[in-house]
Amino acid sequence: MSGKLTYKQSGVDTKEAAAFVSDISSHVKRTQKQRSLHQAFGLFAAAYDLSSYKEPVIVTGCDGVGTKTEILFELDMVETAGKDLVAMNVNDILTTGGDPLLFLDYLGISNLEQERTRITRLVAGMCDYLESCNCILAGGETAEMPGVVPESIVELSGFCIGCCEKSKLIDPKTVRPGDVFIGYKSDSFHANGWSLIRRILEENPDVVDEEELRSLLQPTRLYHDVVADMRRFNVIPKAYAHITGGGLPENLERFLGDYGADLTIPCWDNTAAQKILKHVDPQDRFNTFNMGIGWVAIVKPEDVEAALKAGPGGTVIGTLREGRGIHVKVQGE
Amino acid sequence: MSGKLTYKQSGVDTKEAAAFVSDISSHVKRTQKQRSLHQAFGLFAAAYDLSSYKEPVIVTGCDGVGTKTEILFELDMVETAGKDLVAMNVNDILTTGGDPLLFLDYLGISNLEQERTRITRLVAGMCDYLESCNCILAGGETAEMPGVVPESIVELSGFCIGCCEKSKLIDPKTVRPGDVFIGYKSDSFHANGWSLIRRILEENPDVVDEEELRSLLQPTRLYHDVVADMRRFNVIPKAYAHITGGGLPENLERFLGDYGADLTIPCWDNTAAQKILKHVDPQDRFNTFNMGIGWVAIVKPEDVEAALKAGPGGTVIGTLREGRGIHVKVQGE
Repeated sequence: MSGKLTYKQSGVDTKEAAAFVSDISSHVKRTQKQRSLHQAFGLFAAAYDLSSYKEPVIVTGCDGVGTKTEILFELDMVETAGKDLVAMNVNDILTTGGDPLLFLDYLGISNLEQERTRITRLVAGMCDYLESCNCILAGGETAEMPGVVPESIVELSGFCIGCCEKSKLIDPKTVRPGDVFIGYKSDSFHANGWSLIRRILEENPDVVDEEELRSLLQPTRLYHDVVADMRRFNVIPKAYAHITGGGLPENLERFLGDYGADLTIPCWDNTAAQKILKHVDPQDRFNTFNMGIGWVAIVKPEDVEAALKAGPGGTVIGTLREGRGIHVKVQGE
Repeated sequence: MSGKLTYKQSGVDTKEAAAFVSDISSHVKRTQKQRSLHQAFGLFAAAYDLSSYKEPVIVTGCDGVGTKTEILFELDMVETAGKDLVAMNVNDILTTGGDPLLFLDYLGISNLEQERTRITRLVAGMCDYLESCNCILAGGETAEMPGVVPESIVELSGFCIGCCEKSKLIDPKTVRPGDVFIGYKSDSFHANGWSLIRRILEENPDVVDEEELRSLLQPTRLYHDVVADMRRFNVIPKAYAHITGGGLPENLERFLGDYGADLTIPCWDNTAAQKILKHVDPQDRFNTFNMGIGWVAIVKPEDVEAALKAGPGGTVIGTLREGRGIHVKVQGE
């Protein structure tokens, strides 16, 4: 090697980057069937026209997939990581009443040439979920960081922007005693609590078999079907909650102020999850995992009947009362 | 330890997370002096009211700080990493003509207790820059991922949303032969090309001393002063370009289509940078680094005089011509 270095010799290959952009372009197009960007800038930023809204309020959030990423990659469930990334972000947007419009992803990797196939599959998984909820993959950054990102790891973070007419924003401050909590089923542990699950798996390698583990790793459910049905039924809930890390108590208490509830949830009909839960401190079960309920709507008593039919259907799990604190018990326990 | 694990025992401490949120709250408040969120959701997503816009178009992008992060952390220049993260994103938004409104950050760390002081300083740096351009720190995610993120590393990514009246969006497709390129000075290498610089430093540890290295590491310049002055002078440029990885050629060619230019830039008056550049392949210098020009405006000939006075002042570096390709040479070389 001469005394003068090229950028490629330092581990960053800009030609490979252009090829990756081409690899994912068909997937990206799938997310623009119903909505499209305002300018094909191909540029420094993506643009989306909101001028059809009367009083637009944008809503936004950012999230990752946490340590679930590592175990997904070990089992080559790469598409699932993409779906989890989308669902963790889109569900947060849906809690506001807003439509998810734009999604952006950040992928940090050690070497693009080695990772190109894998992250293309990851983007394909993202686009499956984005397509299903009409949200555009508007941009992203794939950063090649040799020496900073460990070789087997993909750093993942996502970011979603939605929009809502101001008059239709869901306002959790409107909850009142007597309002009813409707719980909707999760698909599994989703993307929270995996540091704990992985620790349990390390200490008890035979607690679940590989098939059970794969079932536990299925992607976070997207609750856009529940939200779409609620609109169709003309039900505007008082609040929605996306049950992630912290479980039902933390994710409900954060907006209930001086109100609370004593919730009774159905026993989680998931054999593999129950095998894992046996190894978890009983209190931490409720404060870490969704325990089978991944989405909650709080509605007026007169809206209960309709709300129970939204999406694949929900269950009444409690009623709002005066006094702080969410307490959860399992039916029959 | 009993057979049942708590979440904290697996390496994730939710109480520490709440304390961190409290640590950064005074910094976050600084970013809401001029603008404020629509609902203090404290919730799943942040909301911002755009109803004062007539025909709002939102613009968005995402970026990180790349491998510069590692060397900044080695030298304990943590606030700089926060500023770089903001500038890399906000500058991209500014290229569209939009105002940067909301910023979100994602920080992936191995252990919050160990990293709390350092990432609080990082957020303080972010808020210094956000405050200066009136952009709200609207949310973020700090993910504690023991085993996934190496102990000395903070994974960093940022997302920015801006808004622009549709009629005022900058449209690079309007460029025409005869339009003039104005270059504005960078503060240093900014946050690109550091894989290469680090490799040079490894092979030639004495090429710069520590003081010079620290000067090379100063944060990416925010070009909101140039953009604000252009508005004040009633100059609407045909295009703006933020010169990041890929240098002047790649960042200009991406939107110039069949047009191009032969640019002549001033010799980069930065002794430390020149010492580094001596070790870089001559062609890769221009295709990797900003070479002293971090921002370019393309304006009509009649706007040149005003554009030269914007911000700390610019320099004419060339004229648009028919024919693809950006070729760059240094004055007098």
